[in-house]
Amino acid sequence: MNEVTARRARGGGGSARRAERTAVSLETARFITRNIPNFEILNDEALQIIEWNADTVLEEIGVNFVENPAALQRWRDAGADVRGERVHIPRGLARQLCASAPSGFTQHARNPARNVEIGGRNLVLAPVYGPPFVRDRDGGRRYATMEDFRNFVKLGYMSKWLHHSGGTVCEPTDIPVNKRHLDMLLAHMTLSDKPFMGSVTEPSRAADSVEMAKLLFGADFVDRNTVMTSLININSPLTFDATMMGALEVYAQAGQASIVSPFIVGGAMAPVTVAGTLTQVLAEVLAGVAYSQLIRPGAPVIFGAFVTSIDMNSGAPTFGTPEAAHITYGAGQLARRLGLPYRSGGAFCGSKLPDAQAAYESANSLNMALLSGVNFMLHACGWLEGGLVSSYEKFVMDADQLGTLHHLAQGIAMDDNGQGMDALREVGPGGHFLGCAHTQANFKTAFWRTDLLDYKPFETWEEEGARDTETLAAERVKKMLGDYQQPMLDPGVAESLAAFVAQRKESMPDAFV
Amino acid sequence: MNEVTARRARGGGGSARRAERTAVSLETARFITRNIPNFEILNDEALQIIEWNADTVLEEIGVNFVENPAALQRWRDAGADVRGERVHIPRGLARQLCASAPSGFTQHARNPARNVEIGGRNLVLAPVYGPPFVRDRDGGRRYATMEDFRNFVKLGYMSKWLHHSGGTVCEPTDIPVNKRHLDMLLAHMTLSDKPFMGSVTEPSRAADSVEMAKLLFGADFVDRNTVMTSLININSPLTFDATMMGALEVYAQAGQASIVSPFIVGGAMAPVTVAGTLTQVLAEVLAGVAYSQLIRPGAPVIFGAFVTSIDMNSGAPTFGTPEAAHITYGAGQLARRLGLPYRSGGAFCGSKLPDAQAAYESANSLNMALLSGVNFMLHACGWLEGGLVSSYEKFVMDADQLGTLHHLAQGIAMDDNGQGMDALREVGPGGHFLGCAHTQANFKTAFWRTDLLDYKPFETWEEEGARDTETLAAERVKKMLGDYQQPMLDPGVAESLAAFVAQRKESMPDAFV
Repeated sequence: MNEVTARRARGGGGSARRAERTAVSLETARFITRNIPNFEILNDEALQIIEWNADTVLEEIGVNFVENPAALQRWRDAGADVRGERVHIPRGLARQLCASAPSGFTQHARNPARNVEIGGRNLVLAPVYGPPFVRDRDGGRRYATMEDFRNFVKLGYMSKWLHHSGGTVCEPTDIPVNKRHLDMLLAHMTLSDKPFMGSVTEPSRAADSVEMAKLLFGADFVDRNTVMTSLININSPLTFDATMMGALEVYAQAGQASIVSPFIVGGAMAPVTVAGTLTQVLAEVLAGVAYSQLIRPGAPVIFGAFVTSIDMNSGAPTFGTPEAAHITYGAGQLARRLGLPYRSGGAFCGSKLPDAQAAYESANSLNMALLSGVNFMLHACGWLEGGLVSSYEKFVMDADQLGTLHHLAQGIAMDDNGQGMDALREVGPGGHFLGCAHTQANFKTAFWRTDLLDYKPFETWEEEGARDTETLAAERVKKMLGDYQQPMLDPGVAESLAAFVAQRKESMPDAFV
Repeated sequence: MNEVTARRARGGGGSARRAERTAVSLETARFITRNIPNFEILNDEALQIIEWNADTVLEEIGVNFVENPAALQRWRDAGADVRGERVHIPRGLARQLCASAPSGFTQHARNPARNVEIGGRNLVLAPVYGPPFVRDRDGGRRYATMEDFRNFVKLGYMSKWLHHSGGTVCEPTDIPVNKRHLDMLLAHMTLSDKPFMGSVTEPSRAADSVEMAKLLFGADFVDRNTVMTSLININSPLTFDATMMGALEVYAQAGQASIVSPFIVGGAMAPVTVAGTLTQVLAEVLAGVAYSQLIRPGAPVIFGAFVTSIDMNSGAPTFGTPEAAHITYGAGQLARRLGLPYRSGGAFCGSKLPDAQAAYESANSLNMALLSGVNFMLHACGWLEGGLVSSYEKFVMDADQLGTLHHLAQGIAMDDNGQGMDALREVGPGGHFLGCAHTQANFKTAFWRTDLLDYKPFETWEEEGARDTETLAAERVKKMLGDYQQPMLDPGVAESLAAFVAQRKESMPDAFV
């Protein structure tokens, strides 16, 4: 009996076996392992300049660790020059501290078939994170609720090309701010069996996340394995606030993974030029990852880069732009040179609707992220309106497009079957390949196929109502939610999770800010 | 006085000067010169296998030159083994013949500021080619007319990121088949001053194209320079029909450029595997380009690859797919190894509407084409419904996205200004970059900016009618056509062109098939 089945067996018995028998088997693609090169936009000289400059920033300008005396002491002990809340990190020190971080790690899911490997040539896809609003075709734009949250977790569970359940798939604004992390975690843990993210909005909520993970996976298992990857945003430029660092400290101490991620709208929170932004991104990640290793050497971390540009006329953030692509390509190279897994990309867009603008911008971003060597892609589906909105329709539209990334990453088969000389010989000039033996042997797997988009003849399409993509997507959302069946979970575990959530909720008054 | 002004002066005089004074100055971007690497998906070993296999195809299977005894004789004289209409080309011969084709060439426009360099690290963008239907938001889908054709030429002329006026921007179905090439050429020559394509639907129409070009540019100039690039499709698999080869012969003899282009729906006209399709593409291009050099060594040609995959359920061609991307990346590498300019890519989609599907598929295709090293991109804007429809709205939507390719291709500036260390020093931790000196000095050029998409706050956008991308595009189409002003043309030249068209039309009865 392996570790996972042993863990499953706790509190199992007859009811667990009954649950297993009724569970629905669902097709989920394995995380992507690239068999294609990364796109290397910068040469070695450029990368060395940026690395030199980032160290200059850390040493000469420094970074602020705000309202966090313990962090300042850790930095002092590590050899940094701390003046007030400003930490000046001597050239080379941050990179040296980062060396103890692993180049990759396994994030375990409660269903071991859904475990993901983060790092190397792998790419793990997770849904949109953070929007306070949702939109769907029938209901329009409105504040997100816990019911929406559960629906998005269900859609994520049902989405073949999505490997990860994500975190705050939308903000459940109908639940008190200080309690919603409990309901969100419970939803990920019970409505899906894919890996998920922990809460970061306060250190105590990170601690709750670890506690709940222990109920789900077993305390021993969590002590020895990574079962959560959480999003630690840096307050760019160059500022590490106590809330986010507090959450990072909890996760690092527990051996759980953190994405150390500058959150940058270029021209506002970073220089208006690409190389300047890359310098800042690298400096911030170096400082944040180094700090994680001061907490616990070997704690799993991810080099994060959330970057967009800004519309200089309106000040609005813009998405799917060439400058964001440049930064994403460059940051990937910097992450690989640092030997860390890389988080960036997403189905980013600024559009208010899941229309052509949304799709152009999202496709630009998704393609660029694949070629940038991203290892963990948050916001891979469902993002709308600059991240203010989780869109039901766009969730399934993007999730369908994620299939193209899987196929792109396979590269080109060069074995005898791939070369297809038999087909060329069989068909010859003027012939047709549809019926030949080589086609018959390969047609089922040769091409990616959408589960959503329209390929029908014009007349058929018109007779069927001339549906646009949003309409097709709205129908698919309804079908997926209708078909949803909850994955098997040990009833004892489910009860203990529910009891924990109830107890924690009772222990504090509601807070709505 | 240089060659071009000398040419302009013919038949000029007072009226030409008056025309020049009233001409509108219009912003058009220079063709793209890449300052970023190409994406190399295949390694040397894979490329050598494909090259070996392509030569095997040419030698062992051979290619058909149909109803073209002169071509068969040329091949015999060159050393090929001709049996019936089947030409077996000994290993290495085709590549050897291709060596006389130039690695790049200038296509001249009547306005020398619009000349384009095709080859090397350059990318020239041209609009959609060939659809029998048009669609716009108000009028829906309908057969294209000459009025539509003129409108698309005007939109192309007004589109900042489009370098080329293209060819059959739509089929003017209200004009007899045997005469429409005359009206189409006249429209390109008079309504735009960007470079254009010649007719290929019959050798006599190619000859008419050359004659009209001589009226526009002067006969001497056309004899010594390339002023047209025309699309010669191969009848895949491995078949060269007399019509297309006849047109190729006319253009090669006149020193005008041809795109030698397999037209492949993978799985139907080529093997269902990528490497097999690449083998066929290379074999076909080798044979076609070699043949052009048998007509006239040194004739300018382009390595073309129009490739899509097929939906194996319905048989419909599909666009923006990963398999098409693989082929486009690989064919670019093969073209570069052959030392030829490369044509591929386009804003391809299968959607019936300019909706999200259209934009996902088009953005996938456009991004892949840039990184594939494409030198000439036909269909860069306006393509809808698998090429059956030229869409007014999608034309301006795609044309706007072409701006992102220009900015992506610039790469990352690594000079002192690009590094932005002054900005980082000025702003420091917790600061804001919008007001800093570095931002102020760079904000006008730092970021690509759309002329179409919506970045407004939600409330403003809603008050203004909650317009989707198609609606914004429809408004932009109306504005562009309203603002259009014809570029200056020597009235003597205009008269001679009109007279030629009238005379040629009178010389033949109408034909509608």
